[in-house]
Amino acid sequence: MIRKLAVFGVGLIGGSFALALRRAGVVGQVVGYGRNRGNLETARSLGVLDAIAETPGAAVLDADAICLATPVGALPALLAEIAPYLGNDALITDVGSTKQDVIRAARVALGDCSGQFVPGHPIAGAEDSGAAAARSELFHGKSVILTPLAENRAEAVARVSGWWQDCGATVATMEAERHDRIFAAVSHLPHLAAFALVAELAGRPEAALFFQHAGSGFRDFTRIAASHPEMWRDIALANQGALLDEIDHYQEALARLRQLLESGDSVALHDLFERASMARRTLTTYLDRS
Amino acid sequence: MIRKLAVFGVGLIGGSFALALRRAGVVGQVVGYGRNRGNLETARSLGVLDAIAETPGAAVLDADAICLATPVGALPALLAEIAPYLGNDALITDVGSTKQDVIRAARVALGDCSGQFVPGHPIAGAEDSGAAAARSELFHGKSVILTPLAENRAEAVARVSGWWQDCGATVATMEAERHDRIFAAVSHLPHLAAFALVAELAGRPEAALFFQHAGSGFRDFTRIAASHPEMWRDIALANQGALLDEIDHYQEALARLRQLLESGDSVALHDLFERASMARRTLTTYLDRS
Repeated sequence: MIRKLAVFGVGLIGGSFALALRRAGVVGQVVGYGRNRGNLETARSLGVLDAIAETPGAAVLDADAICLATPVGALPALLAEIAPYLGNDALITDVGSTKQDVIRAARVALGDCSGQFVPGHPIAGAEDSGAAAARSELFHGKSVILTPLAENRAEAVARVSGWWQDCGATVATMEAERHDRIFAAVSHLPHLAAFALVAELAGRPEAALFFQHAGSGFRDFTRIAASHPEMWRDIALANQGALLDEIDHYQEALARLRQLLESGDSVALHDLFERASMARRTLTTYLDRS
Repeated sequence: MIRKLAVFGVGLIGGSFALALRRAGVVGQVVGYGRNRGNLETARSLGVLDAIAETPGAAVLDADAICLATPVGALPALLAEIAPYLGNDALITDVGSTKQDVIRAARVALGDCSGQFVPGHPIAGAEDSGAAAARSELFHGKSVILTPLAENRAEAVARVSGWWQDCGATVATMEAERHDRIFAAVSHLPHLAAFALVAELAGRPEAALFFQHAGSGFRDFTRIAASHPEMWRDIALANQGALLDEIDHYQEALARLRQLLESGDSVALHDLFERASMARRTLTTYLDRS
């Protein structure tokens, strides 16, 4: 049972986390803090929050559960602000898509208390954002990855796992470095590739003509290009190294494909498309549940 | 009213075209021809076809409506085979994603009768294929683009337009060159980019680990990588020139994005993501109907 939950950044993820714990009946009070007053008011009116905190310190005071759901770039300053108010029994988790950078920031800000931070990443999201998009079932059947610190006590990891299980999620743990490498490939690169494509087309004189003829393939391929710009700027910069590697891999793959097309190598093109198609079809069962 | 419809390639598109015309009650007999006997039997058992033709000539004999829905690469040979059997009142259309190459092939094969060919492209599809995936409502509310030839009579274009309208689609016309340029950008490039990404990841030693952690963003971005390899090989080769240009544009866009990321240019990254996000959100209303 959580006595008081403090949510920083009451958007799709932070708001859904609060709603899911409420729905599960495992939380007493939910207090929110964020930059956007209008969004916080919406969250309160929708029953996501009981109260809006005026300062980070006030949000954290007496809280035993703290969820950091702001864009990743805001975390270092936020951690430093809440550190002085952190109770001994309080645990902090986050929902960031990158983990090594958050861990570095938490260790700097929390010092000897860094064991109270259990880093997390729910594999759930949507192009919608804001408290109005929050829903209690967002994490049902989804995966949450925790990347525990050497200084976390097992009981702390178990408590944070329990929160996510109460949200209906399956919890796995892995090393932060491995996490960041995997998500550079399967999440961060696809987002950047979609942003790049749409920005490029949108900048052309014939953009309206092009978009007018876009079909369902374009719709699916570019859906993630509607994602939150600030959040993705922060993710890209936070996972810069692994993501640069992935861009290089992708550009090499495109260059090889271009070469096959230019030389009219119909057999090799078919082979490449078939390998992709088979791999993607194998994934369908797994992905269609997410 | 169509007396006899001949469908070549009774897959998702060809089969759905037949089913939609049947549902509209505007077709007498439907005869199919294709390479895959099992698929043709499926089509007949599902009521897509009345009969299976043993030869292209037999399918076309007495047909007043002919729909070519095979992979684009098969069309030159097929057109040459059916030309001798083509009745004076027969009209041919196709469903290919590229138009200039089909027009060249039709003029070679049909000679003086090329005015009986009205090229078309329904903007509808799915990663599923085969007669079993066909459904009568596939074209409801979708666009079909016709790229008429100078030698088409207006009445011929109107008749083929009517077939698609009977399927529930909206029909537009444009020049073939413009069509191929637009679809290189909004359809063919996204497909190749998705194939390249999935084939590249699938070839890595850690592929299983990566795919296991793919979420909804990866699912959407790569859905079209499950598309039909042969069909897309043919489309890529048929639209080679425009598609090479689009790959170059895309590679340049990725290279610019990489450079912003490498230099840590947070302002320019945010600006790029915001332009993409705004453009994609503007498209949402339009695209979500397709």
